[in-house]
Amino acid sequence: MSTLISHLQSIVGTPHVLTEGDLSAYEQDWRRRIHGKALAVVRPGSTEEVAQVVKACAAAGVSIVPQGGNTGMVEGSVPDESGQQVVLSLTRMNAVRKIDAANLTVTVEAGVVLQSLQQIAAEAGFLYPLSLAAEGSCTIGGNLGTNAGGTAVLRYGNTRELCLGLEVVTAQGEIWNGLSGLRKDNTGYDLRDLYIGSEGTLGVITAATLKLFPQPAAKLTAFAAVPSMEAAVELLGLAQRELSAGLTGFEVMNQFSLQLTDQHFPNLRIPFTADHPWCVLLENSDNESEAHARERFDHVMELALEQGLVLDAVIAESVAQSKNLWHIRESIPLAQAQEGLNIKHDISIPVSNIPRFVAETDALIAAATPGVRMVDFGHLGDGNLHYNVQAPLGDDGEAFLKREEKRINTIVYEQLMKHGGSISAEHGVGSLKVHSLPKYKSPVALQLMRQIKQALDPQGIMNPGRVLEA
Amino acid sequence: MSTLISHLQSIVGTPHVLTEGDLSAYEQDWRRRIHGKALAVVRPGSTEEVAQVVKACAAAGVSIVPQGGNTGMVEGSVPDESGQQVVLSLTRMNAVRKIDAANLTVTVEAGVVLQSLQQIAAEAGFLYPLSLAAEGSCTIGGNLGTNAGGTAVLRYGNTRELCLGLEVVTAQGEIWNGLSGLRKDNTGYDLRDLYIGSEGTLGVITAATLKLFPQPAAKLTAFAAVPSMEAAVELLGLAQRELSAGLTGFEVMNQFSLQLTDQHFPNLRIPFTADHPWCVLLENSDNESEAHARERFDHVMELALEQGLVLDAVIAESVAQSKNLWHIRESIPLAQAQEGLNIKHDISIPVSNIPRFVAETDALIAAATPGVRMVDFGHLGDGNLHYNVQAPLGDDGEAFLKREEKRINTIVYEQLMKHGGSISAEHGVGSLKVHSLPKYKSPVALQLMRQIKQALDPQGIMNPGRVLEA
Repeated sequence: MSTLISHLQSIVGTPHVLTEGDLSAYEQDWRRRIHGKALAVVRPGSTEEVAQVVKACAAAGVSIVPQGGNTGMVEGSVPDESGQQVVLSLTRMNAVRKIDAANLTVTVEAGVVLQSLQQIAAEAGFLYPLSLAAEGSCTIGGNLGTNAGGTAVLRYGNTRELCLGLEVVTAQGEIWNGLSGLRKDNTGYDLRDLYIGSEGTLGVITAATLKLFPQPAAKLTAFAAVPSMEAAVELLGLAQRELSAGLTGFEVMNQFSLQLTDQHFPNLRIPFTADHPWCVLLENSDNESEAHARERFDHVMELALEQGLVLDAVIAESVAQSKNLWHIRESIPLAQAQEGLNIKHDISIPVSNIPRFVAETDALIAAATPGVRMVDFGHLGDGNLHYNVQAPLGDDGEAFLKREEKRINTIVYEQLMKHGGSISAEHGVGSLKVHSLPKYKSPVALQLMRQIKQALDPQGIMNPGRVLEA
Repeated sequence: MSTLISHLQSIVGTPHVLTEGDLSAYEQDWRRRIHGKALAVVRPGSTEEVAQVVKACAAAGVSIVPQGGNTGMVEGSVPDESGQQVVLSLTRMNAVRKIDAANLTVTVEAGVVLQSLQQIAAEAGFLYPLSLAAEGSCTIGGNLGTNAGGTAVLRYGNTRELCLGLEVVTAQGEIWNGLSGLRKDNTGYDLRDLYIGSEGTLGVITAATLKLFPQPAAKLTAFAAVPSMEAAVELLGLAQRELSAGLTGFEVMNQFSLQLTDQHFPNLRIPFTADHPWCVLLENSDNESEAHARERFDHVMELALEQGLVLDAVIAESVAQSKNLWHIRESIPLAQAQEGLNIKHDISIPVSNIPRFVAETDALIAAATPGVRMVDFGHLGDGNLHYNVQAPLGDDGEAFLKREEKRINTIVYEQLMKHGGSISAEHGVGSLKVHSLPKYKSPVALQLMRQIKQALDPQGIMNPGRVLEA
């Protein structure tokens, strides 16, 4: 092993091979559920260095855990406890290689932080639409590795749909330069989409060419109370018809999630929390003007009120007010954390099945564990719910998790199978869900995945035990 | 072989195994460049039958050529001349399994004709946006197998981006049911996008769940003469800024392509052909009204005239007039065919590089083969040109092709490499470009493709010799 360490030092330089001191930023996952031990944390500065690091590890038979901002939710980017895995941190590779305005593309390295890219795009007059809670520290490489979703998928798609080309170091340490800025390229299998979302198990994404969009003239939000989840789904359809691609966000929040938020963040001034079972937040990105955006929202809300889909509504009077409304939605996970540990689910269901799914599953969970409090919120526009279960009032969170997590997961996962859903919508599999996947994924699909893993990483050194059981 | 034939007859029924009579509809490619000979044409009526057919062929070691409407441009869906390949025609599998209005999805079988799906969607109040010249006979299975592009990619993406889930029969005859209607599902490798665009070389796509969109309130076109390709690219950027997702089409046509069209179809009444080097066609899909669509177009054209990007422009006064303008653009390939054989290229280039690419390549070709006439047209909005070379006036088309095709292909392909382009934008590889690919594609990418092919079709029975050399 010491030979490997010296070899790695010779490739990336001694200061960039970390073996001592507090490495918990690299070894512990974001949710602080596991703390591994790395053989070394290696921080290459170029694609060529990444390739050499992979070759060195492959020759030594040492496995590699690629890591970006280490903000993942599924324990996929930290080493195991063996002390035998190399963490390959991409954060030093953070160059913006090229902005091509006429082609509406930007080429960046894997270590660029999402928020930096949003800002760089904005300064050049464009929008990079990916937006998610960890944007201040997650990296583009991590976004690609996990096919990150977020709040704008309804309009712009997941990270996969935002990417036109990749640069990848294969499991053999070869460099594939597929940094195409092409919107049409039918010259063979879609390697790009195969690496995207493979969570570092097939190779290392080192750079990408991503889509940019014109900045909308105005982004406004509306906040509305709806009488039921059925009404929320109908309102979504109405807003899609009337606003078309202007509808760039459609979030849903149940009463309890807003109550919690109000309780822990009383300064947020939530428009209405009282007696409404659900609220929704709509975002309209208008290519004309703020006035036009508001006029279109007025029109949608008028129709919705007439049809009984909305009980009460607030349309933001300004961009600042829009941000405040978003802030309410974004504060739910924080309020929830303040309230104590809870059982989290990142799930998706065909939008048409969501009302039935939620009604049935709420009832099943309430019957199984009386007194639990459901924190239901998420991206209704793309069918993704964060369907979380908070311990009964006064119950100890940790004990609750220990006692109930498996049982409640099983209820939720079985319900997902019944309603055509997925046990991981936007967070991925990692090691957290790797043992659940065989129960809930088609055996044929799993077999195909194993064949691909075997074909592209026959040595099994790329992030082993993640996505697929080792 | 006769044992296999009887086996196939027992699976799909004797009338659906064709071995005699004129099978040229299945054996000859759309462009009539090659005419193969099938062992049999098998027409299964269900996914289960497809699976059994694949198993039977695999057991007999007989290779399979999946086929939809057989309208492909790259000789990918007809058998070779050996008489030893089974054509698997999916056209009998043409059921619409489900429309899910609230989820904005439709699930259809592979044999549904594109135009039928467009109509079915429209009758349900939705838009299925894929649109291309062969839409009256091409099938959804073929669209998926080749990742078809067309005229609306600028806004809606290629077929890959329109698909949420697949049902596939693997090369081993297993059925993978991945017919998800989910917009977020991060539970493993992207098998869907791997099969899409694999041209039947990894398995058989039998059904798909596809995205639907709300019907726009109005679709209008504008037709404009521009002073240069540079101006066309600038106008594209302007239109994207002003119309955002409303801009659903942006086509370009050079002077000669319009002259040819005018000559062979004088009734089309082309707005201006005379002295303008390039014309463009813009489509605006408006979610408010026809009046609003026109108002937005007026605004764009006013800005463009002010900035000197446009010399003259016509904005359609009605939907009928919009269709007429589209008809001009769509008649170019027909006019070209009337004029005689020509050397076709379906290429893509980053939009920013198109002006230089065209100027340089036009000059190189003119120098190499004096008198040739360039028919340049295509989907400028997504960087895809149909960059075709017509024989000099009076020259015999067939002799010209024989003499010049290879040499001109080489000029074009080398130029594409220089400018970051692709030798196949939307048509695929098939057998037409399979021997060119190794010269113009990254060897690392090709090696990865071979490893995937070997992993998923180790027997090599799925459409051998297409995409990858056999």
